[in-house]
Amino acid sequence: MAPRVLVNGQADTRVSALDRGLSYGDGLFETIRFMEGRAPLWSRHMARLLLGCERLALTKPDPEILLQEALQVCGGMPDAVVRITLTRGVGERGYAFAPNASLTRIVAGFAAPKLSAETWRDGVRLHVCQTRWSEQPLLAGIKHLNRLEQVLARHEWTDAGLADGVMMDAQDRVVSTVMANLFVMLDGALVTPSIERCGVAGVARAEVLSVRPDAREAELPFMALARASEVFLSSSVRGIVPVQAVGNTVYVPGPVTRALQAHWRGLGYSTEHA
Amino acid sequence: MAPRVLVNGQADTRVSALDRGLSYGDGLFETIRFMEGRAPLWSRHMARLLLGCERLALTKPDPEILLQEALQVCGGMPDAVVRITLTRGVGERGYAFAPNASLTRIVAGFAAPKLSAETWRDGVRLHVCQTRWSEQPLLAGIKHLNRLEQVLARHEWTDAGLADGVMMDAQDRVVSTVMANLFVMLDGALVTPSIERCGVAGVARAEVLSVRPDAREAELPFMALARASEVFLSSSVRGIVPVQAVGNTVYVPGPVTRALQAHWRGLGYSTEHA
Repeated sequence: MAPRVLVNGQADTRVSALDRGLSYGDGLFETIRFMEGRAPLWSRHMARLLLGCERLALTKPDPEILLQEALQVCGGMPDAVVRITLTRGVGERGYAFAPNASLTRIVAGFAAPKLSAETWRDGVRLHVCQTRWSEQPLLAGIKHLNRLEQVLARHEWTDAGLADGVMMDAQDRVVSTVMANLFVMLDGALVTPSIERCGVAGVARAEVLSVRPDAREAELPFMALARASEVFLSSSVRGIVPVQAVGNTVYVPGPVTRALQAHWRGLGYSTEHA
Repeated sequence: MAPRVLVNGQADTRVSALDRGLSYGDGLFETIRFMEGRAPLWSRHMARLLLGCERLALTKPDPEILLQEALQVCGGMPDAVVRITLTRGVGERGYAFAPNASLTRIVAGFAAPKLSAETWRDGVRLHVCQTRWSEQPLLAGIKHLNRLEQVLARHEWTDAGLADGVMMDAQDRVVSTVMANLFVMLDGALVTPSIERCGVAGVARAEVLSVRPDAREAELPFMALARASEVFLSSSVRGIVPVQAVGNTVYVPGPVTRALQAHWRGLGYSTEHA
């Protein structure tokens, strides 16, 4: 089914070929899961989007308008994913931009992807990516439109049995997967990689950190994964997903993973999977 | 004057709001100066574009079609700049892409910017940017659509007397300016920063390296700029532009700069500036 799309509030599927979002990746996006017209992590998505606007000196959008448009494009779908894209709009050729640039706002609704019951129960297998995150503190954390590293990393494998891939920085420190954040139980402590230099500060990651205030954001050398007792992913679309293997190292979903999956269900996200 | 635009060969000004060029910056571009329907550096632009296609696993375009479309959008303009943008087209939501993805091809013609005679003669002043290039060997050199670092760097100054800004990597090594490559005469040798880890391999840079085979690609610590006897920029749009100041350090255009400006004129680029 073709997604429903609004461009600047109007039913439309097209934007200017000279939009800076396309010319330079000059913008931001959010991918938000809606259950029966409700987005449990909405305020976290808006907080990240507004932080991104500050970092990129973009005019801040009105969250109330975004919410109305999001509801419009997912209306009728019981389990939907809404992508909101904000760009700096159409400008002159060149990197310079006017401070009062008029944004382009794209809101598109898709059916949420189905996770199998086995995935939720047993977990996923991960590829180990050769493509590394580059370090750029000015862009780390926010969900901007410059996503070629993840596109290249995702292109490394075609095996449908590999659901995602671990991405490191150039110093062999784990940062995230291509599509999600990653948590490990290490020496009895819950740890997730710092995203100060690279990576995306996921809203599901923020939710986990808020309900587990004992969790630490820290550097996570790839070698340390071998002695983790639990590994799981956090994703605003897919939720809390156990990891059963990273390359040849295998894991069994443990109590921390299960407790956070229960929290995820408690937020109102369906786990009635296909 | 609004630019003339072709999208996939058709007179059009719009593309899908779900194009991967906009969603992820998943694509490439070239900015090519045409003098009376002739682009002296055309083959260098095509070489870089095709290298970029290999790096990003994009289907290679037919250069003959690109040339015909470029001529079409700059027809009638004696001094034009044509931007060719190639994206991976419209795909499913998510970073994965099909190997046979149908590209989006945007060809847009603009009037070339005017440089003043004073700029050509006396040179430009450069800001020193705080924004650094991140290191990503997989993307270094090619002209992809992930350009937020340059957007942020260009946003650092508003003084119209500063024509461009020096950009370093995180280790205080000069890489380029925001909009051009940079050359220096250092201890009697012509040197330009290596672009193996970050930056764009400019086609004007390649032209300079081909006519000055003695030139070296090397690491260039920012501190070394202070003892350079000449500094100039190379840009396919602006040509060979002397630098008269980097921050508070001043330079006078020297014989190497002048000889390369003469070469540039010899290629057929107008230097009859406004």
